[in-house]
Amino acid sequence: MIWIKRYRRSFLAGDAGAGIIVGLILIPQCMAYALIAGLPAVTGLYACMLPAFAYAIFGSSMVASIGPMAISSLMVGTAVSALAPVGSHTYSLMAQQLAFVTGTILFVCGIARMGFLSNFFSRPVMSGFTSGAALVIALNQSRPLLGITGDLAFTAIHWPSATMGLISLLFLAFSRCGMPSLTLFCSLRIADILPKLAPIAVIVGATAAISWLGQEYTGIQTVGQVPAGLPAIALPSSFEYVRILLLPSLTIGFMVFLLNQSAAQTLALRRSERLNPNRELLGLGAANLASSVSGGFVVTGSISRSAVNSSSGANTPVASLIAAALIALALCLPNRWLSMLPLPAMAAAIIVAVVGMIDFSTLYESWHHDRSDAATLVATALGVLLIGVEEGVVLGVFLSFMSLGWRSSRARVAVIGRMPGSENFRSISRYTVETLPNVLMLRVDTALVFNNVNGVIDSIEQKLRADPAIRHLVLELSAVNMIDTTAMLAIAELNSALRGQERCMHFCEIKGHVMDRLERSTFISRDLTGEVFLSAAQAYRHLRKRDYL
Amino acid sequence: MIWIKRYRRSFLAGDAGAGIIVGLILIPQCMAYALIAGLPAVTGLYACMLPAFAYAIFGSSMVASIGPMAISSLMVGTAVSALAPVGSHTYSLMAQQLAFVTGTILFVCGIARMGFLSNFFSRPVMSGFTSGAALVIALNQSRPLLGITGDLAFTAIHWPSATMGLISLLFLAFSRCGMPSLTLFCSLRIADILPKLAPIAVIVGATAAISWLGQEYTGIQTVGQVPAGLPAIALPSSFEYVRILLLPSLTIGFMVFLLNQSAAQTLALRRSERLNPNRELLGLGAANLASSVSGGFVVTGSISRSAVNSSSGANTPVASLIAAALIALALCLPNRWLSMLPLPAMAAAIIVAVVGMIDFSTLYESWHHDRSDAATLVATALGVLLIGVEEGVVLGVFLSFMSLGWRSSRARVAVIGRMPGSENFRSISRYTVETLPNVLMLRVDTALVFNNVNGVIDSIEQKLRADPAIRHLVLELSAVNMIDTTAMLAIAELNSALRGQERCMHFCEIKGHVMDRLERSTFISRDLTGEVFLSAAQAYRHLRKRDYL
Repeated sequence: MIWIKRYRRSFLAGDAGAGIIVGLILIPQCMAYALIAGLPAVTGLYACMLPAFAYAIFGSSMVASIGPMAISSLMVGTAVSALAPVGSHTYSLMAQQLAFVTGTILFVCGIARMGFLSNFFSRPVMSGFTSGAALVIALNQSRPLLGITGDLAFTAIHWPSATMGLISLLFLAFSRCGMPSLTLFCSLRIADILPKLAPIAVIVGATAAISWLGQEYTGIQTVGQVPAGLPAIALPSSFEYVRILLLPSLTIGFMVFLLNQSAAQTLALRRSERLNPNRELLGLGAANLASSVSGGFVVTGSISRSAVNSSSGANTPVASLIAAALIALALCLPNRWLSMLPLPAMAAAIIVAVVGMIDFSTLYESWHHDRSDAATLVATALGVLLIGVEEGVVLGVFLSFMSLGWRSSRARVAVIGRMPGSENFRSISRYTVETLPNVLMLRVDTALVFNNVNGVIDSIEQKLRADPAIRHLVLELSAVNMIDTTAMLAIAELNSALRGQERCMHFCEIKGHVMDRLERSTFISRDLTGEVFLSAAQAYRHLRKRDYL
Repeated sequence: MIWIKRYRRSFLAGDAGAGIIVGLILIPQCMAYALIAGLPAVTGLYACMLPAFAYAIFGSSMVASIGPMAISSLMVGTAVSALAPVGSHTYSLMAQQLAFVTGTILFVCGIARMGFLSNFFSRPVMSGFTSGAALVIALNQSRPLLGITGDLAFTAIHWPSATMGLISLLFLAFSRCGMPSLTLFCSLRIADILPKLAPIAVIVGATAAISWLGQEYTGIQTVGQVPAGLPAIALPSSFEYVRILLLPSLTIGFMVFLLNQSAAQTLALRRSERLNPNRELLGLGAANLASSVSGGFVVTGSISRSAVNSSSGANTPVASLIAAALIALALCLPNRWLSMLPLPAMAAAIIVAVVGMIDFSTLYESWHHDRSDAATLVATALGVLLIGVEEGVVLGVFLSFMSLGWRSSRARVAVIGRMPGSENFRSISRYTVETLPNVLMLRVDTALVFNNVNGVIDSIEQKLRADPAIRHLVLELSAVNMIDTTAMLAIAELNSALRGQERCMHFCEIKGHVMDRLERSTFISRDLTGEVFLSAAQAYRHLRKRDYL
């Protein structure tokens, strides 16, 4: 809410312009997203009003446009349709409760300052997820685009619908590709915004065509009945499904947060703003709770709308509030025209929007940078496409942690020796260094944790076995930031094994916070066969004396 | 099979002694484990013969005793009883197919050299799992111990059974605790082995009591019919349940491998042997396939039996083969006595064995070393106890990776400067160093990966915002072992943002393999606002010149 105190009258022009543009975009878009979620179109409009206010109070981004979004709507549809028949009373009730539980989870996570959770998702996973979900939506929308109600088959095509859908699609595709040439005719900023308004033009044109030809005559499906007036504000009438909705709410809540983060982060970087992930959690939580009590469903920040909002000149959340007011106006004025919006044109708009979300550049970058990241991206996308939206996310996160674990599990140990005439110790494989007979000095170049300690111990044992003359093992731990319990126990066991072989194990350059932990266990204080030296040089001097005296 | 070439006649005495002792232990133990798995007692004996041969051919441990084990049997019982009624034909068929699928998975993992998978389990997770599973088994066994067939209630106690069970329990507990005093009367080695034979003494005594009193008179339940002769060797008669058994087989397969690993590792360390995890996978896979085709169920290496085998003088797998021959003998000779083994005495033996597996020392160590490891241990144990055996394992692994991810996600960045009159660069918070005006030199002390890059970028941005005079950012990457795609993209974005602020981003001391990856992306070669220097000293010299000229 800092923006209220800092608000200047000069912000208003930009906010009003952006608010009107985003409001115009929102009306058909949110009705379409409500249909993706399997809900009545009007709930999409409800989900754009109160949530904008709630986010303005709690959120941290100046330009995020909060409302239904294609992917979150797909997730709502997938989750609820597995539990109740689409169109039933139970379905709407579940969608409302889902938003409530999701909002509660997000708000509580915000209070608990769990914004760091976004760090558990790598960009390849997010990119794969977004592309996969976009493809799922595009495939689903091919049905309303072609006017098909039953199974997808060539004979089931309803030709008037298909004609309208494909013409809309061509027009939108052309307006996307034709965008660069627009700069010849108008300023860069308008050339940036105009193509974003193309979907509105298509839908207005298609609606006009329907009214002229008559809906009964063409047989083209429209959005249908949109009740006039604002939604009633009320808590969900019951909470009976909360328990079975908990798991989907968790997944949807995290994805809502992440989708919003990736949108907001890109914009914040471009605008040199600072984003607070914990405040974002609070803002999204409040927005979803507000959506739930005002007849809406799950909402999040949309990257495309937020970008339009930003480039149309929005300075503060006032822009979003103006957009919300515009929608309220549309609901309160005579709005029979809303119910006439034709589904094929809306499907075309959705398809063009989501196809733009398919992200090849991250795939290209990760393929060149790191094959395992590229594989994670593709696996996540295929998982979303072939198994399911939630399963795909879980698979992606699992894979990225697996690859992190796999890469961090490499044992990195270097035999070191003294650079002649200095106190510096370097790897014997790269430098000409001095070593002591019967002494093996090793530098451990990784944190010692459960997934690499076996490898480290193995390579130490290998080196010891190769030279039975070695009596002293010195471990240089300057690069070891952490030793977990598994590693500590494994080192303690190595220490016991060395005692049996009449060898000693020494340490040097243990970091302060690592030593604090080690000292608490009995191993260093009581059982260590050797000594703890401050520096490698000290260990070297001490062991040289001992050996030659 | 190297042990065959190296076999010397002098090994035979030790092998024979150990084989006879382990064989005697195996007979009642494996029958009891078969009952835990919900299978006829004789299948436990079948599971001890052919698997021992298969492991001897493919495995790598000299002293591992392969056969049914309490925890793996519990997992088999849990998995199969969820799918088929205990005692039905489907149940036995599923148990056999489960061993087959588990064996196949393990063998294939061995061929694919996936022994590194054991690194994904931390010791606290293994310890929590073992303790939790031991408690589950002990609780389950309280029923046969007290002769209860229905619900667990005081009134349901069958007093003759309870008397036998509790006397057996007391005797076994006493023989465990009285072990140290044994050393007064006999050699250390015998004092080590004798208590391991106490369960046999108890079961023999109880069986004698039953035969004397008459099973009909006391009403104490016995093992029941044990068919004479060796099992037929045959593939499972069908593979119809393989698909639904795949998921349990995966979990059971990994736990079989891990239980065997933690047993074998401890012994190998004590015996200074080298363990090959890939050969272990092959050995266990072959053993489970052998068990499946010879009427047995899932087998693994048992820590307690392997320890007895080792301390009784076993030198090679010949000991296990002799134990297997002993069991074959028991099956072929008149064996009505096998069917007379009383369940309460066997339950007492199992309870004492599994209570010994409850591991407080790892809990103690991890509590002192690292609270989050201790929490993982307790959560895994509680998960196994309260939710389920498989769910507990998954929970534990999830938690340990979470805590690894959480700890590795800390951003570690230090502002550095030049030590006066040297080429060394150190943290300005710890040393008195020289810095350049308008230049910020930062050392990154962690791998740059998706779960910490946001934190690192945040702290860089904070430092840049604190001093608007800074024109040059130098990142010293000597400690950065890895930059994944997410981190590379985030750094590229920071680079673009710096360009907008007319600042430059330089790198120095990039490791060779990290640079190789970075060069493949367009970021370093084309878009970098600054330069790549070999060393921090070079960057310092260059930027000093540029600023003052």
